Amino acid sequence: MIKAGIIGSTGYAGEELVRLLWQHKDAQVVWYGSRSYVDKKYRDIYGNMFRIVDDVCKDDNLNALAEEADVIFTATPQGFLASELTEELLQKVKVIDLSADYRLKDVAVYEQWYKIKHASPQLLPEAVYGLCEVNREAVRGARLVANPGCYPTCTTLAIRPMLKAGLIDPSSVIVDAKSGTSGAGRGAKTANLYCEVNENIKAYGVTTHRHTPEIEEQLSYAAGEPVNIIFTPHLVPMNRGILITAYANLKERISEEDIREIYHRLYDDETFVRVLDPGVPPETRWVRGSNYVDVNIAVDERTNRVIMMGAMDNLVKGAAGQAVQNMNLMFGLPESEGLMQVPMFP
Amino acid sequence: MIKAGIIGSTGYAGEELVRLLWQHKDAQVVWYGSRSYVDKKYRDIYGNMFRIVDDVCKDDNLNALAEEADVIFTATPQGFLASELTEELLQKVKVIDLSADYRLKDVAVYEQWYKIKHASPQLLPEAVYGLCEVNREAVRGARLVANPGCYPTCTTLAIRPMLKAGLIDPSSVIVDAKSGTSGAGRGAKTANLYCEVNENIKAYGVTTHRHTPEIEEQLSYAAGEPVNIIFTPHLVPMNRGILITAYANLKERISEEDIREIYHRLYDDETFVRVLDPGVPPETRWVRGSNYVDVNIAVDERTNRVIMMGAMDNLVKGAAGQAVQNMNLMFGLPESEGLMQVPMFP
Amino acid sequence: MIKAGIIGSTGYAGEELVRLLWQHKDAQVVWYGSRSYVDKKYRDIYGNMFRIVDDVCKDDNLNALAEEADVIFTATPQGFLASELTEELLQKVKVIDLSADYRLKDVAVYEQWYKIKHASPQLLPEAVYGLCEVNREAVRGARLVANPGCYPTCTTLAIRPMLKAGLIDPSSVIVDAKSGTSGAGRGAKTANLYCEVNENIKAYGVTTHRHTPEIEEQLSYAAGEPVNIIFTPHLVPMNRGILITAYANLKERISEEDIREIYHRLYDDETFVRVLDPGVPPETRWVRGSNYVDVNIAVDERTNRVIMMGAMDNLVKGAAGQAVQNMNLMFGLPESEGLMQVPMFP
Amino acid sequence: MIKAGIIGSTGYAGEELVRLLWQHKDAQVVWYGSRSYVDKKYRDIYGNMFRIVDDVCKDDNLNALAEEADVIFTATPQGFLASELTEELLQKVKVIDLSADYRLKDVAVYEQWYKIKHASPQLLPEAVYGLCEVNREAVRGARLVANPGCYPTCTTLAIRPMLKAGLIDPSSVIVDAKSGTSGAGRGAKTANLYCEVNENIKAYGVTTHRHTPEIEEQLSYAAGEPVNIIFTPHLVPMNRGILITAYANLKERISEEDIREIYHRLYDDETFVRVLDPGVPPETRWVRGSNYVDVNIAVDERTNRVIMMGAMDNLVKGAAGQAVQNMNLMFGLPESEGLMQVPMFP
Repeated sequence: MIKAGIIGSTGYAGEELVRLLWQHKDAQVVWYGSRSYVDKKYRDIYGNMFRIVDDVCKDDNLNALAEEADVIFTATPQGFLASELTEELLQKVKVIDLSADYRLKDVAVYEQWYKIKHASPQLLPEAVYGLCEVNREAVRGARLVANPGCYPTCTTLAIRPMLKAGLIDPSSVIVDAKSGTSGAGRGAKTANLYCEVNENIKAYGVTTHRHTPEIEEQLSYAAGEPVNIIFTPHLVPMNRGILITAYANLKERISEEDIREIYHRLYDDETFVRVLDPGVPPETRWVRGSNYVDVNIAVDERTNRVIMMGAMDNLVKGAAGQAVQNMNLMFGLPESEGLMQVPMFP
Repeated sequence: MIKAGIIGSTGYAGEELVRLLWQHKDAQVVWYGSRSYVDKKYRDIYGNMFRIVDDVCKDDNLNALAEEADVIFTATPQGFLASELTEELLQKVKVIDLSADYRLKDVAVYEQWYKIKHASPQLLPEAVYGLCEVNREAVRGARLVANPGCYPTCTTLAIRPMLKAGLIDPSSVIVDAKSGTSGAGRGAKTANLYCEVNENIKAYGVTTHRHTPEIEEQLSYAAGEPVNIIFTPHLVPMNRGILITAYANLKERISEEDIREIYHRLYDDETFVRVLDPGVPPETRWVRGSNYVDVNIAVDERTNRVIMMGAMDNLVKGAAGQAVQNMNLMFGLPESEGLMQVPMFP
Repeated sequence: MIKAGIIGSTGYAGEELVRLLWQHKDAQVVWYGSRSYVDKKYRDIYGNMFRIVDDVCKDDNLNALAEEADVIFTATPQGFLASELTEELLQKVKVIDLSADYRLKDVAVYEQWYKIKHASPQLLPEAVYGLCEVNREAVRGARLVANPGCYPTCTTLAIRPMLKAGLIDPSSVIVDAKSGTSGAGRGAKTANLYCEVNENIKAYGVTTHRHTPEIEEQLSYAAGEPVNIIFTPHLVPMNRGILITAYANLKERISEEDIREIYHRLYDDETFVRVLDPGVPPETRWVRGSNYVDVNIAVDERTNRVIMMGAMDNLVKGAAGQAVQNMNLMFGLPESEGLMQVPMFP
Repeated sequence: MIKAGIIGSTGYAGEELVRLLWQHKDAQVVWYGSRSYVDKKYRDIYGNMFRIVDDVCKDDNLNALAEEADVIFTATPQGFLASELTEELLQKVKVIDLSADYRLKDVAVYEQWYKIKHASPQLLPEAVYGLCEVNREAVRGARLVANPGCYPTCTTLAIRPMLKAGLIDPSSVIVDAKSGTSGAGRGAKTANLYCEVNENIKAYGVTTHRHTPEIEEQLSYAAGEPVNIIFTPHLVPMNRGILITAYANLKERISEEDIREIYHRLYDDETFVRVLDPGVPPETRWVRGSNYVDVNIAVDERTNRVIMMGAMDNLVKGAAGQAVQNMNLMFGLPESEGLMQVPMFP
C-alpha cells in the first residue's frame, strides 16, 4: 500500500486527488495538508467526504510528511515547492508536483513568465515532465515528476502527432482553448462568483497566459525545432472540462484519412487517448470525471489547414488523474490502476 | 458473473445503469435494449462510452432476453412491463423494474394516477418494493423488484423515522421537492430545452404528480395508518440531484438532539444513508454521482414543527444505483458492491 | 428631473438601480457611492456601463450627498443607515432604504434577528414599509421608505389575499422559497463561487433567516392577528429570480375558482401583479428583468390545503425596481414610470 | 406608428422582436405569424408576454399581411421567404429578412452551402445587406433588407477595420466563435436538451458552417479581394451571447496603440459599437439584452499576429435588435430608437 501525502489538499485539484486515491486499491492518503484549514476536519470542508474521510487537515511540513509518506503530491501555489524541495527530501520520498515549478527546463523562461525567482534550479534537470503518453519510461525511474498543466496536456496530445510527422508549419500554430471554472481554483475572488461566470464567456490572459511557454516547450520537442504559438484561453460557465481547438497550416496537401491514420498509430495502444470517429468533434461532456482525452482532427481543404481538437476533464487528466497515472508508473503499478472510471453523463 | 439485460438502455437512467454495471466486478451487460435506436452502436448515442461499450442496441424482446440474462432491468415507460411480464418469464429471470408498474399495491390507485389499465395486476402481490433500507430481507428473496421512484426514495428515507417513532402528525406532512433536469428524461420536448430550463425555477405537477400515491403508501406503512400529503416538485437548472424539504407538526415538544438520536439509531448501520451533523443542511453537490442519501432535520421551536431534509443523486440512489443495490441483494452479493463511488465534486 | 444618489451602488442591487434609473426619463443618478471602490470609474467595475456611465465612485457621505440629491437610495449593509440617518437629513432629502433597518416596527425584534443595536429607533414610526401594492398612499407622503426585502415582497403578495379574506389558518402557513444567487450579493465568498453554486441546490438559514420576522409582520397586518410561519429559503443555480411555494390549511372548503376570484379582485388593477391562468404555475423565467410578480394558487382537495405561489425578479421587484416604484410614488410620478420593461426571455 | 408583422414570431428571434417592438415608441406589432401555433394565444407560448400581448397567432400568409403592415420581419427557415417573395409584395411593404435567403449575392454560393434551390434570385441584386454600420445609406433606401447572421455581424465588425486598413494578410484569418444556445433555436431536438448542453462545450459545423461564405463575402468587401477563412463555432452552456476570437498575421509590425486608433476612428461615432479599453477583453455578460457590440484587439509581438475579439447578444444585435435598427433607418427614424436598453447584469 502506497502511503500518499497531499500538500494543498483543499483546493479543487487536491480534493480530486483525494477522490481518486480513495478509490485506488494500492494507495491511501496519510496526510491532508492545507495551509488554510489546519486542524479542521476534511469532511467539513468538502461535504462529499462525510463518513468517507475522517482525518483533520495538517500543515504543509514537507519534512515531517517525508517521514510518513512514500509519495508527496503538491497542489500548491507556484514557487512553494521550489523553495522547499531538497536533495535530502528526494532521497526519502518521491514527489509529484502539480504546480508549475519544475515543468519548464529553462529557468529564465520560468522566471520571465511566472515573475518569481526559482529557488531550486539545480533540481530542474532531474525533474521529469509527467506527460505519461510521451515520457512513460522516464517517469518510471523518476524521483521528481512535474505534473503537466491542464491546457498543456490537452494541447500537446492533440497537436503533437502533426508536428512529429512534420505535417504542419510549426510557426502557424494557434491554440484557442476553453476551460470550465474549476480551473480557476477555490480562492474567493469576485471574478469567480457564480453570477459573474454564469451566462458569460470571455477570453483571459490574452497573449500572456503562463501555460504558453510550457506548451511551446513540449511542441518544440515534437517538432524538433523551436515553436512559438498563440494561446488564448477562455472561461466557460461549467465546472469541469477543457476543450482545445487548434489551427495550423498544412505543409502539403494530405487527406483527413491519412492524418487520422497517424493519430491511430500513435494512440490506439494508449488507454487514455481516444481518437474519435471521422466528423465527431470532441465534447467535454463525454470525458467528465474520467482520465480520457478525446482527440480528433478536421482538414479544411479550402484553406489547406488542419483543425486539431481535444477534450478532457481538467481535474482528472488535466491534474489529479494524470498525477495518479504518474504515481502508478513510478511505483511499478499498471498505469491505469484506479483510473478506469467511466465518464459520468449527464 | 451476473448477466444483465437492460430494456430502455438509452434513457438517462438506462445509461447510468450501464455506467454502474460496467464498473461492477460481478456483473456485465449482455443486452442494450432500445426501442428508438435498434442496430445503432451504443457509443454513438452516448459518446462517453466510446472505446468502452462496443455493442449495438437491440430491441425490447423480453422473451429473447430472458434466455440470455440472469436479470433484466426495465427502464421503460409506464405500462410497458406490466403488459409484457409473465409468470413464465419470471421463472427464467429476475426482473428489476425502474418504471412505476409494480410500485403501488393497490391497482385502482395505479390506474387512477397513471391513467393506464394495469395489464398484470396478478403479479402485484409478489412484487417487492425495492427500497433496500426498508425491505432488505424481502428483496433478497424476490423475483420481481419494483425499484422505487426518485422522489419517493428520498422522501421516504427523510421522513420515515419521524412517522415510525410516532413523533409527527401524519396528516400534516408537506413535501416540497426540487429535482435536476435529468429526471425529466431524454425525450426531445421544448419544455426541456436548455434555454427553457436554464435561469428558471418552477413548480410542476402541482397537486397531481404521480409520485404522490407512492410516497403516501410508503409513509403509511411507517405510520401504521393512511397518510395523505401535499407533494410539490420543482424543476431546477442542474443535471443531477434531488432535494427534499419536508414539513410536519410535532405531536409534542421534543428536542432536535432527541430526534437526531432516532435517525442515528436507524441509519448509522446503513452504508448509503448519511445523517449529517447538527445545522448542516443536505446539498445535492455532496452526493453527485454516488449512491448516498444525506438526511438531516431541524426543529422550529417557534411553531413546533420539524423540517426534514434529504439530498440524493436522482440517477444513482434515485434510479440506477438503487437498482444495482437491489441486484446485489437478490444475488447474494455484498449490498454495496460496485456502488462505493466517492461523490464527485465539483 | 429627480436627482438621485446611491449609497452602495456597486453591489448587485445598486447596479440594478443604476440600470433602471438610467432608463428613467425623470431621474438621473448624481452620486455613485461605494465604500470599496472610491475614485474608481463605475464602468470599470461594471463593464455593461461602458460608454453609458462615465462617473467615478464617491464615498458614502450622506450629508454631502443630501446637498446634491433629491432622493437617496441606500443599498448598504444592515445597520449602516440606522447609524447615519437623522431628522436633519430627512428634512433635506427623501430616503429609500434597501437594507432592513426600517422594515420592522418592533425594534426588539430587529435587534434579536439582526444581532445589531438599532441606532435610530426614533425614526421607525415614521418609516413607511414600501410595498406599494399595500401601502401606496402612505408611500406617497413618506420621507423615509423601507424598501421591502426580496422574499417578503414575493411572499406577502402571494399569501396576503388569503389572509385578508380569512380563508386560511394563519398558524398553518409554511413558506418554501427559492432564490437565484444574485440575492447573495457580490461579496467574494467561497460559498458563492461558481463551482460551489452550480449543479447544486441547498436550503440555508433553516428556521433562522432574517426575513422571517419581516414576512410575519406583514402577514399579521393582513390577518389582523399575529402570524408565525416557517420560512425556508433555498439557493438555486441561476442569477436572478425568486420563487415562493407556500402552503396553508383552508379553514373551510372553497373552490379554486372562488379563490382566484379574490386574487383577481385584489390585483387586476395592479400594474405589476399578474394573476396567472388556472393551472399555470409561476416561473421565474417569465418575469426576468421586469418588475412583475406572477402569482397563482392551487387547491389540494385531498388535504384541504391551498398552495400559493409567486415568482419575481429578486433584483427588480425584489429590490431596485420596487425602490424606483416607491420613488415614483414619493415624487408624484406615474407609478410605473421607467418600469415597463418586458421580461427578457430567454 | 409603423405597423409591423412578424412571420416566425414564436422562435427565439421572433419573440425578441416582439419584446423590442413592444418597447418601441413608433412601432407596433399587428401580426404574430407562426406556422406551429396558429390560433394559439401568443402569451400561452411565451409566458413573459402575459398581460402584455393579447393577440393570437396567425398563419404565415405574406400577401394578407402585406395589406395590413408597413414592414414584415421574416424569422423563418431558409428558403421560405425566397419562395414567397415577389416584386408585387415589395411594392406594398418593406421586408426585413432574418433568414439567410438574401444575404449572399452569389446564388451559386447560396445553393452550395444551403443545399436549397433559390426560388427568387432576381431579387438578390436589390437586397441590401443590413449591417447598418457598413451599409447605412443603402439600408435607408431599401425595400428588402437581408438582416445579417449573428456570427457574421460580430465577426465582420471585429475584423473589418484591420482588412480595410490593409494591415493583415486576408488569407490568414481564423475565426473561433462561441455562441449561447438560443442561437440553436426553439426546435425540440435531443442535442439541445438542458442535460446535453449544460456542463459541456463542443465545436460544431467544423469547416462546414453556413455562416462561412457570408462572413467571407463581407470580409472580401473590406479587403478588396476574395477572402477565405476558417470559421469554427462552438456551443456554450448559456442562453445568450456570442464571442468571437479571431486571429490573423500582421503584414508589418504595428503597435497595439496604432491599431486601436484605427478602431476608434471607425467606431467612436457608432452608437452600438464600443471599442474597449486596452487589455480589456470583450465579455458577453456586459452586452446581454442590449444592441451593443464590444470589440477589442491584442497584438502578439512574439508571433506578429493580431487577436481580434467581439462580444454581442446574438438575439439583439445578432438578430432582432439589428432588424429594428434596420427598420429605424428604412423609416427615417433615429437609428437607435427603441434600442437603448442598458445591458442587463447579472
